[in-house]
Amino acid sequence: MSFKQLVRALPAAAWLPGYRRDQAAADLVAAVIVTIMLIPQSLAYAMLAGLPPEVGLYASILPLVAYALFGSSRTLAVGPVAVVSLLTATAVSRVAEPGSAEYIGAALVLAALSGALLFAMGALRLGWIANLLSHPVVSGFITASGILIAASQLKHVLGIDLQGHNLPALLGSLARQLDAINPETVMLGVAAIAFLFWVRSRLRPLLARTGLPPFAVEVITKAGPVVAVVVTTLAVAGFGLNDAGVRIVGAVPGGLPTVSLPPFSPALWLELAPAAAIISLIGFVESVSVAQTLAAKRRQRVDPNKELLGLGAANIAAAFSGGYPVTGGFSRSVVNFDAGARTPLAGVFTAIGIALTTLLLTPAFHYLPKATLAATIIVAVLSLVDIGALRRVWRYSRCDFAAMATTIVVVLAIGVETGVLAGIGVSIALFLWRTARPHVAVLGRVPGTEHFRNVERHEVITSASVLSVRVDESLYFANIRFLEDYIYDRVVTAPGVTDVVLLCSAINQIDASALEGLEALNRRLSDAGVRLHLSEVKGPVMDALERTDFLAHLTGEVFLTHFEALARLDPEATPQTAAPNPVPIDNERARR
Amino acid sequence: MSFKQLVRALPAAAWLPGYRRDQAAADLVAAVIVTIMLIPQSLAYAMLAGLPPEVGLYASILPLVAYALFGSSRTLAVGPVAVVSLLTATAVSRVAEPGSAEYIGAALVLAALSGALLFAMGALRLGWIANLLSHPVVSGFITASGILIAASQLKHVLGIDLQGHNLPALLGSLARQLDAINPETVMLGVAAIAFLFWVRSRLRPLLARTGLPPFAVEVITKAGPVVAVVVTTLAVAGFGLNDAGVRIVGAVPGGLPTVSLPPFSPALWLELAPAAAIISLIGFVESVSVAQTLAAKRRQRVDPNKELLGLGAANIAAAFSGGYPVTGGFSRSVVNFDAGARTPLAGVFTAIGIALTTLLLTPAFHYLPKATLAATIIVAVLSLVDIGALRRVWRYSRCDFAAMATTIVVVLAIGVETGVLAGIGVSIALFLWRTARPHVAVLGRVPGTEHFRNVERHEVITSASVLSVRVDESLYFANIRFLEDYIYDRVVTAPGVTDVVLLCSAINQIDASALEGLEALNRRLSDAGVRLHLSEVKGPVMDALERTDFLAHLTGEVFLTHFEALARLDPEATPQTAAPNPVPIDNERARR
Repeated sequence: MSFKQLVRALPAAAWLPGYRRDQAAADLVAAVIVTIMLIPQSLAYAMLAGLPPEVGLYASILPLVAYALFGSSRTLAVGPVAVVSLLTATAVSRVAEPGSAEYIGAALVLAALSGALLFAMGALRLGWIANLLSHPVVSGFITASGILIAASQLKHVLGIDLQGHNLPALLGSLARQLDAINPETVMLGVAAIAFLFWVRSRLRPLLARTGLPPFAVEVITKAGPVVAVVVTTLAVAGFGLNDAGVRIVGAVPGGLPTVSLPPFSPALWLELAPAAAIISLIGFVESVSVAQTLAAKRRQRVDPNKELLGLGAANIAAAFSGGYPVTGGFSRSVVNFDAGARTPLAGVFTAIGIALTTLLLTPAFHYLPKATLAATIIVAVLSLVDIGALRRVWRYSRCDFAAMATTIVVVLAIGVETGVLAGIGVSIALFLWRTARPHVAVLGRVPGTEHFRNVERHEVITSASVLSVRVDESLYFANIRFLEDYIYDRVVTAPGVTDVVLLCSAINQIDASALEGLEALNRRLSDAGVRLHLSEVKGPVMDALERTDFLAHLTGEVFLTHFEALARLDPEATPQTAAPNPVPIDNERARR
Repeated sequence: MSFKQLVRALPAAAWLPGYRRDQAAADLVAAVIVTIMLIPQSLAYAMLAGLPPEVGLYASILPLVAYALFGSSRTLAVGPVAVVSLLTATAVSRVAEPGSAEYIGAALVLAALSGALLFAMGALRLGWIANLLSHPVVSGFITASGILIAASQLKHVLGIDLQGHNLPALLGSLARQLDAINPETVMLGVAAIAFLFWVRSRLRPLLARTGLPPFAVEVITKAGPVVAVVVTTLAVAGFGLNDAGVRIVGAVPGGLPTVSLPPFSPALWLELAPAAAIISLIGFVESVSVAQTLAAKRRQRVDPNKELLGLGAANIAAAFSGGYPVTGGFSRSVVNFDAGARTPLAGVFTAIGIALTTLLLTPAFHYLPKATLAATIIVAVLSLVDIGALRRVWRYSRCDFAAMATTIVVVLAIGVETGVLAGIGVSIALFLWRTARPHVAVLGRVPGTEHFRNVERHEVITSASVLSVRVDESLYFANIRFLEDYIYDRVVTAPGVTDVVLLCSAINQIDASALEGLEALNRRLSDAGVRLHLSEVKGPVMDALERTDFLAHLTGEVFLTHFEALARLDPEATPQTAAPNPVPIDNERARR
């Protein structure tokens, strides 16, 4: 592939050449609004990740440009987000001391690994892997992470140092330090939290009643954190609260990020790989769902595999420009969309806005109290907590509830990574458990027809010597033994039976375990003096069976129709009276 | 439950009260033959597990009695087996030094844990969990274990000390000790292996040609190891080969096992728990498949959950009588069955036989060379190696081949436990991957009927404004996004479409993720100006949907039949001409 072809393959090639002035105006307006929202978020989420504030800003510059070139969503706003920051803190603090240069380096490694993984998944078209994260698990994870993040940020609101990555550890740590709480910090933090909650819950309806357009209401509400930052910074600087123990952001180095290289240590990369995989999955799921929701509003599409490439590029960019793992943010993307962003160039303009911030504004952050940043995080993540979802899911399905509850409990009690894995494990196990017992019915003939129906539901004629069984599921390793035992048990309890016919019309696939199970059933039935027959086997299944010696060992036959089987095996109970079914057959790819 | 009720609930209550003299005679004959076979096996498998020879004998006494009371198979012969001995050696040597008292104690813990797990699984009716071990994984596991066991026993045939629990380690260890090989041991070992192979492959047809009854041929062949043991023991004792470096079993304490208590150390129990889980699963799968095969030959049944109780009781008995983990052995059970065993009392008689052996025969084992025991193991396990299965599975299914090959490679390269887990993981992942892309078809109406068929297979009439889609699978977390994208993509590329009707006749279940996905699809379609309808929803699915607010948000309607939907949404393309289908409907539990 030449460079020209490569460039043309970029998603940006679809919109960049025809870029118009009216699009530019719309993108610019959206970028200004997103920038205002992103500045305090960048600083706060970097703090949540245990990183210096400038790392959050750096993660909001080049990654946005990379995503604009490679991503397939027109309006996704990429950058640091709460959940990924928490995952970063958990993973990196296992391998390095917070505040050390190694800690920053490990965050770079995490971004590089996560970027490489996302990019590889996109190139190999493995986007479907994200489907393993079932909705109850994601929903439970976000709720529990919200609680955990809020708990972890309490330290900044109270002016103490909490340790731990789960609720028992954080609360235990809190209980031991109650006497170290700094009153000035608490006042500032509580005031900021109260103000932000007020903006969210009261100011919005108030503004709406003034007749302002809904979008303006949205922008003013989203600017709440900026107001909190400005006011509390001025308060600290004016009253010298930092001398009274209020912790401040302090000196933030100005200037653009320089090229960074993630430290090369195979042991470190290996150690961080599992965490990078979880970060990639969670980040991708969060990102792609908001991207698809927004794309639908303009009847556009988002290709999950291209999205992986875009997020991969963004994270690699983060790794080489002093950032940390990023993904598409939910509220930020919605604001970008509502503000009228038309193309990913809005993201580039946002990146320029953040770049200007690092060049010009960093001195202004010196007296910014950490309590304010913690307040913005707490208010943001508590809005993600959705305890009601537990009740809704419980009402809908006990299995899904179990997956969700497991995720929440394990995230809170042990930690985020274990929680996600436990949730995935439980949802897969419950799915296997459900499909392990397929619906199986003993059949009888509907009088006067060639149709066979469940004896428990219909008035049908059964044969004393031929047992007719239908299974409503493809056969695979987890359910074959159930079918084997079901049929064998019915034969053992019905001494007159000499033949079993398995109606295979609903079987789309038989895996090697199921084939082995059918062979075992055939042997067991044969040892008990009973023949096994199949009927209405679909073409592809028959093709597969013919590649084995199963049919050679089969004691019975394979019949085209179930009626034919009964007519041959028990002609007295099955007179040739009924007319054939006039409906066209829809066995996809059926040969017989 | 009173003691009387408890006794009556035992499987033994079904056969013990009516026990007849002719049954006793048959059981006794079978017991004598199995005992002869079991003596060298007990000594050999204990050696394979890294345990003193008497532990193998102890594991063949009380566990057999416990199984006779609790097990549901009439003819399963329980005791030490090769694969479980290898798993025991792997697990126990991680926590204790071979040859130490701690090592023997850890083996007791493993038996106790494994017994408790099996018993709990039986009581909770969790026998289906064993289905997670797909056939390719079990088959690959047994082949690879056979190779690994044979490699690990080479040390006894060569008279050296090999270290390691995987092939690279064993071979590396061998390469470093080539100069330490003991020629006398090699001569003895190779002669024993050659003799045992000759018995298996040549003696059998030779005896068959003499006109001996097949059962007698079988018994003589199975006595091969006993002959090898007797001859080589006499050779060592007579020629003083033990002074020439041939390692012998040495002093075996005589007398019955005393009551033992597995050491109580929570840390040790916790450390051995995962290994106990794997041993339980593997042992159960091996045992239940042979039990079911044999039961079928007499039209009897084996209840997997009762089997779990029986094996659980056997292992708990092993833990309290100085044994180690046991399970049902394949060839031993077949011999027991063929020798005419009628009831589990054959197992009790076998136990008495082994008990007499420990009382009277142990001095005779003093000069028994370890090389002979290793030879019996090597010949036994190499018969389990089935490389041809790889080719057969490859021909049948690439996915199943991948699971099998993964299991074999990981068992050989890393170890037995990791290998089993990797195999289970791969087979579950491949199953999810296969069901993650269900068969979806765009439908059109068969002219002159009310039937709708795949547009790619049939000559059908389609509507320009209504898209008809059918999905042939229940909807769940791993496949909902595929359906969502499939439908949405078709709508985006067909600008005239205003309505989508999803034919739900094949959907048996919609989990919470799929519900969420349908809601998201409904929103996305709505944002794109398209309504979503459902048709032919099964009763239980409808019940579940009605417990949510999905139907309130649905932009379209739920139609009883797909034809009705089309007749209403696009009446011009769907004239009311066709006659209704006369076939009775078989929506199980359908309300509509």
